[in-house]
Amino acid sequence: MQNIVFSTDISEALDNVLTVKSFNRIFVIVDENTRRLALPLVNSGHVEHAHVITIGAGEVNKNLNTLTHVWIELGTNGATRHSLIINIGGGVVTDLGGFAATTFKRGLPFVNCPTTLLAAVDAAVGGKTGINFAGMKNEIGCFAKASDVIISTGFFSTLPIEEFKSGYAEMLKHAMLSDTAAFHALLDIDFNRISGEWLLTQLKTSVKVKADIVQRDPHEQGLRQALNLGHTVGHAFESLALQRGKPVPHGYAIAWGLVVETILSRLLRQFDSNHMQRLATFVRENYGIFNITCDDYAELLHFMHHDKKSMNGEINCTLLNSCGNVNTGNTIDPSDMKAALDIYRDLMHI
Amino acid sequence: MQNIVFSTDISEALDNVLTVKSFNRIFVIVDENTRRLALPLVNSGHVEHAHVITIGAGEVNKNLNTLTHVWIELGTNGATRHSLIINIGGGVVTDLGGFAATTFKRGLPFVNCPTTLLAAVDAAVGGKTGINFAGMKNEIGCFAKASDVIISTGFFSTLPIEEFKSGYAEMLKHAMLSDTAAFHALLDIDFNRISGEWLLTQLKTSVKVKADIVQRDPHEQGLRQALNLGHTVGHAFESLALQRGKPVPHGYAIAWGLVVETILSRLLRQFDSNHMQRLATFVRENYGIFNITCDDYAELLHFMHHDKKSMNGEINCTLLNSCGNVNTGNTIDPSDMKAALDIYRDLMHI
Repeated sequence: MQNIVFSTDISEALDNVLTVKSFNRIFVIVDENTRRLALPLVNSGHVEHAHVITIGAGEVNKNLNTLTHVWIELGTNGATRHSLIINIGGGVVTDLGGFAATTFKRGLPFVNCPTTLLAAVDAAVGGKTGINFAGMKNEIGCFAKASDVIISTGFFSTLPIEEFKSGYAEMLKHAMLSDTAAFHALLDIDFNRISGEWLLTQLKTSVKVKADIVQRDPHEQGLRQALNLGHTVGHAFESLALQRGKPVPHGYAIAWGLVVETILSRLLRQFDSNHMQRLATFVRENYGIFNITCDDYAELLHFMHHDKKSMNGEINCTLLNSCGNVNTGNTIDPSDMKAALDIYRDLMHI
Repeated sequence: MQNIVFSTDISEALDNVLTVKSFNRIFVIVDENTRRLALPLVNSGHVEHAHVITIGAGEVNKNLNTLTHVWIELGTNGATRHSLIINIGGGVVTDLGGFAATTFKRGLPFVNCPTTLLAAVDAAVGGKTGINFAGMKNEIGCFAKASDVIISTGFFSTLPIEEFKSGYAEMLKHAMLSDTAAFHALLDIDFNRISGEWLLTQLKTSVKVKADIVQRDPHEQGLRQALNLGHTVGHAFESLALQRGKPVPHGYAIAWGLVVETILSRLLRQFDSNHMQRLATFVRENYGIFNITCDDYAELLHFMHHDKKSMNGEINCTLLNSCGNVNTGNTIDPSDMKAALDIYRDLMHI
């Protein structure tokens, strides 16, 4: 089981975690941005003497070249199996840094310090590491868990609101997988007035949902597919946006995908109509709309048929009977998907 | 626990293993030699329709370029997590193929069919996968077990005697870690007259020794160091031979290393003198001698201090009180090592 620490003080939390470990050397992996913005917030004696490895920022650098660079830095600076790696960054740093740690000399222990809300609720927890390869997202990687994940809201206060909302969409997903009360609690947010204390409480609940699912199904054999809620349609929206030359943030695509898959849950699984409408209104007001016409349906369905999670080319979705009552592995008829997309356009006032 | 199958008929054994599995596609990884010499011996309907990926033969190809080639072949030929990889080859194929399998889409299942005695008793069992990187052996890799290992003596009958003896040295090591009877049984061999049936019996005993140790310590935290017997000195001999421009087979270096570490066990742990002498005679008669003078001691000790298994630059050896009574993690005083090397030269008639 991963040790997940929640704190408002990253330095203290990190010191507490490191004090009880033994290691011969610490390596810190950051990207250009987190080296400048996040690393100075970490006032830990342990980190002061660490060797810092910096990678390029952004998804475009989550590749084999960057991984090779990290491996070489570890080797030339004397990393052994008794060294420790601390990843300080968003999902690119924790995914790539975790994969480098797990594969160098067949595995060094590593600690994740996510600096974005999205990484805190998604990438940093659960043991998926990897890189993009040959044009495919996360094509190469391992299941390998950070020994400790330190989630500190101190990093999030300076996040652009768009990045904050992107992570919040994954929290919405976790709430819907959990129970109705958690779902309503998150919809009451005012993005202009968020207290660190409130956020920390919500994060504890949200991360626990994911950690529990991952513990019961670490290698994505079944139950873990629940975490795919909103993602079959969300990924299709993301791909369509990319094709249009107007990429959208991942979390925004997931928010819109959650609306469509909630509509499907209403159509096929009696999901509560008021809850469906409330989610659609919340997403429309806070994330805006992803504009589609029925001319886009064929392309969207094409993306869904080719989703990584698809077996045998069918459209596969996680559906909800209600918040917390989850059905994984549903094959969706294209006509049902089109009906859901019609209703999405109605609810989003398109 | 890995399923380890012993057979004289690779085709039947493989069919039995594959019949109870479900997969959407089979990929076979071979090298140039095993494609030509071993693959034609596999008359399995499952393998006939597999996509075959061929890599260059030999240690020099156990690198990132070859790994990238395998990843691309898997991706462009539609491998998914529901596909299966069968590695047919020596340690390079099983190490690199296993690492490719474990990292492609975060892990496909794989089956190892070792075609050399060395791979059968060492590389194919136990879950160490990887590649060489930046001049270091096995610098990048993972702990990941083949679901099944099929050990078929059918492959070994055509091995050059030098390769056969190389694997046999690791069997000697397993016997010494196990008990005195197993040790004596192996010393009774006549390399000119080996029956497949006798070999299969010995292999079952030998592989079980390794499998039992690995199961109790999969990630090399302690007990697994027992398998390092003979390797601290063996690796130093190997490195010195390489430096002299006259490389020696790995198993030969291990045979000579076993002699020196058995002498150390005599000096420091009361290992039986007759057993020590019997091993030295067997190795001298069947493996010849590795020639050293006292002028080589400084260089040999330098290699031992920099061994991958060394902690804090000390010389670390596994020692035996007797066959089967094992002490791991011993720090060896350089003067004791020099005394053992002196006796090695006496026993080898150097």
